[in-house]
Amino acid sequence: MSRTSGQVHVIGAGLLGTSIGLTLSNLGLDVSLEDSSPASTKLAIDFGAGRELKESDDVAIVVVCVPPDVTANTVISALNRFPKATVTDVASVKSSVLEAVVASSADTSRYVGSHPMAGREKGGALSGRPDLFVGRPWVIAVEPNTSTLAAEIIEKLALDLGASPIRMSAAAHDRAVALVSHAPQVISSLLAARLIDGPDEDLALAGQGLRDTTRIAASDPKLWLQILVANSEALLPVLEHFSDDLNKLISSLQEVNSNGALSVIAKTLEAGNQGIARIPGKHGSSNTSYASLVVMIDDKPGELARLLNEIGHAGLNIEDLKLDHATGAQVGLVELAVLPNIESSLIELLTKNGWKLVG
Amino acid sequence: MSRTSGQVHVIGAGLLGTSIGLTLSNLGLDVSLEDSSPASTKLAIDFGAGRELKESDDVAIVVVCVPPDVTANTVISALNRFPKATVTDVASVKSSVLEAVVASSADTSRYVGSHPMAGREKGGALSGRPDLFVGRPWVIAVEPNTSTLAAEIIEKLALDLGASPIRMSAAAHDRAVALVSHAPQVISSLLAARLIDGPDEDLALAGQGLRDTTRIAASDPKLWLQILVANSEALLPVLEHFSDDLNKLISSLQEVNSNGALSVIAKTLEAGNQGIARIPGKHGSSNTSYASLVVMIDDKPGELARLLNEIGHAGLNIEDLKLDHATGAQVGLVELAVLPNIESSLIELLTKNGWKLVG
Repeated sequence: MSRTSGQVHVIGAGLLGTSIGLTLSNLGLDVSLEDSSPASTKLAIDFGAGRELKESDDVAIVVVCVPPDVTANTVISALNRFPKATVTDVASVKSSVLEAVVASSADTSRYVGSHPMAGREKGGALSGRPDLFVGRPWVIAVEPNTSTLAAEIIEKLALDLGASPIRMSAAAHDRAVALVSHAPQVISSLLAARLIDGPDEDLALAGQGLRDTTRIAASDPKLWLQILVANSEALLPVLEHFSDDLNKLISSLQEVNSNGALSVIAKTLEAGNQGIARIPGKHGSSNTSYASLVVMIDDKPGELARLLNEIGHAGLNIEDLKLDHATGAQVGLVELAVLPNIESSLIELLTKNGWKLVG
Repeated sequence: MSRTSGQVHVIGAGLLGTSIGLTLSNLGLDVSLEDSSPASTKLAIDFGAGRELKESDDVAIVVVCVPPDVTANTVISALNRFPKATVTDVASVKSSVLEAVVASSADTSRYVGSHPMAGREKGGALSGRPDLFVGRPWVIAVEPNTSTLAAEIIEKLALDLGASPIRMSAAAHDRAVALVSHAPQVISSLLAARLIDGPDEDLALAGQGLRDTTRIAASDPKLWLQILVANSEALLPVLEHFSDDLNKLISSLQEVNSNGALSVIAKTLEAGNQGIARIPGKHGSSNTSYASLVVMIDDKPGELARLLNEIGHAGLNIEDLKLDHATGAQVGLVELAVLPNIESSLIELLTKNGWKLVG
């Protein structure tokens, strides 16, 4: 069933390595695992992510899933240790790894860097999920001199893991993640940092906006330190541009009656509207917009099930669902997103069945 | 049933005014409505939010729900037009309104400013919801000379609307919302603005982190321009502090090999961890932490219902639920949050019934 053939060896039994091992093992592939910590190796093996490496093994593919600061050296060592294997890594930054690998004396024709756009705020083998990569973009970092065969092998691996492979150069990848991942991480951390000294009574007024904007500030500082340092070159222009915009806004707020001040503030807010409109939608389409319905339900066991049961029986598919418990409330709000063409059927059904639609 | 007595008159038939009218009408209270736009007045009345004001009316409470830039003048005019009424407003900024009202010749002893911490990205009467305020904090802005009677009347109104009244001075309120609401709005807008010029291939790598950090950038620029200008004094220190931190981080990223650079970056990320830990949890408790389980389900009608049905039948209550459709995938992930004391029962139930638990 799998596109990949031969033994896959995973180096690094954290979230990504364990998830890769779990999925490939489920597909029936022969997966071996190693981690610099023997305890982590054992844990991932117990978890079903693979078996221990044996001296007699004939490894076809090596996937390096170690922290960014040791990725290049681990890739170089893997190229030397497994002389027939195609080697990839999954580090979040690609140019610095590529440069170090190319500068080494290893057989770099067997190396193709890659980066699955998947992760969780929690790391470690126990957070590993066999579906972590399903439907996620998986960047295959190809340069003009990248071996076509090696790129195809890693692309097939990504497909076997359920991901959508996307070919980009290392530099293009690093520029993209600086914008869509690294800058948001920095900004979210800086915003959350402002809360440290906030009085309790101020924080008691926190709503969903604050929670959403700061959620990723909970990410692992050790990992992110390495990512930000490794990608500082691509990240800096985004942060500098942000800083310029912020300083212009601060100046305008300091002198709201000066000429053009209101226009700067208004344009900042409008630019935010325009920017968010550029983020592609779910299911990979940038054009799908869902119809949204809000239903009020009692906060007791089974209510949500009853609602969804009725919708399911009517053959209507829900694209997204958000449950919103108001603080301390005895009712919950369920926001249902559906394709626009079934919105009226859903309204009719829910109204007929006595559900309370709000909004 | 209601704590409030007498006729309530709502001025401004947007999201907040309509939601207030709907809820109070549902409680059986006599609600009248007006809006500077006759069409909006009619729409809100059709929507069930109240009736038209009559000359013979004896108004007990006026709730001013107009845009921030006309709030103070509308409050002053209401104090004069309704000589026996207690008047409040729901503007997001309190000091500037209070100053203008106090400086007027109106009978300010009948005025108490307030601010429900509730809203939606969509405005307008048709977005009005009778439960908009349920469980939300509702700040009652009290000063040393605020009439106790007037404060109690508005507090009862907030309770009737399902909100949790919190007494704070106007200055304390403005400082709090600058931190937990206005700064996040500005930062989110500035971050989203960076996306405008991003190539499509970069945006194709966007994940949930970017979506969450920029969600509120979709808010109404006209409304937010007024809020930011009115609260610039309280907002500026937060933004200036953020800017200082950002500039330190940029300098460190420019010279990652200089003394102390890595420490600055690491401390920024750690400060983010500490800051987010200060946000109170759901249900008003800062200490409740939920156990989280992830279940993989087929992306077809009825699957989610079947899952929740079984959970409901077992008498287990779900505190939060997140549906995660991977892009283009035929499976969905359902993340269930439950109180820790029912986690093991839930795992047992789901395993027994053949659900696929992941992670």
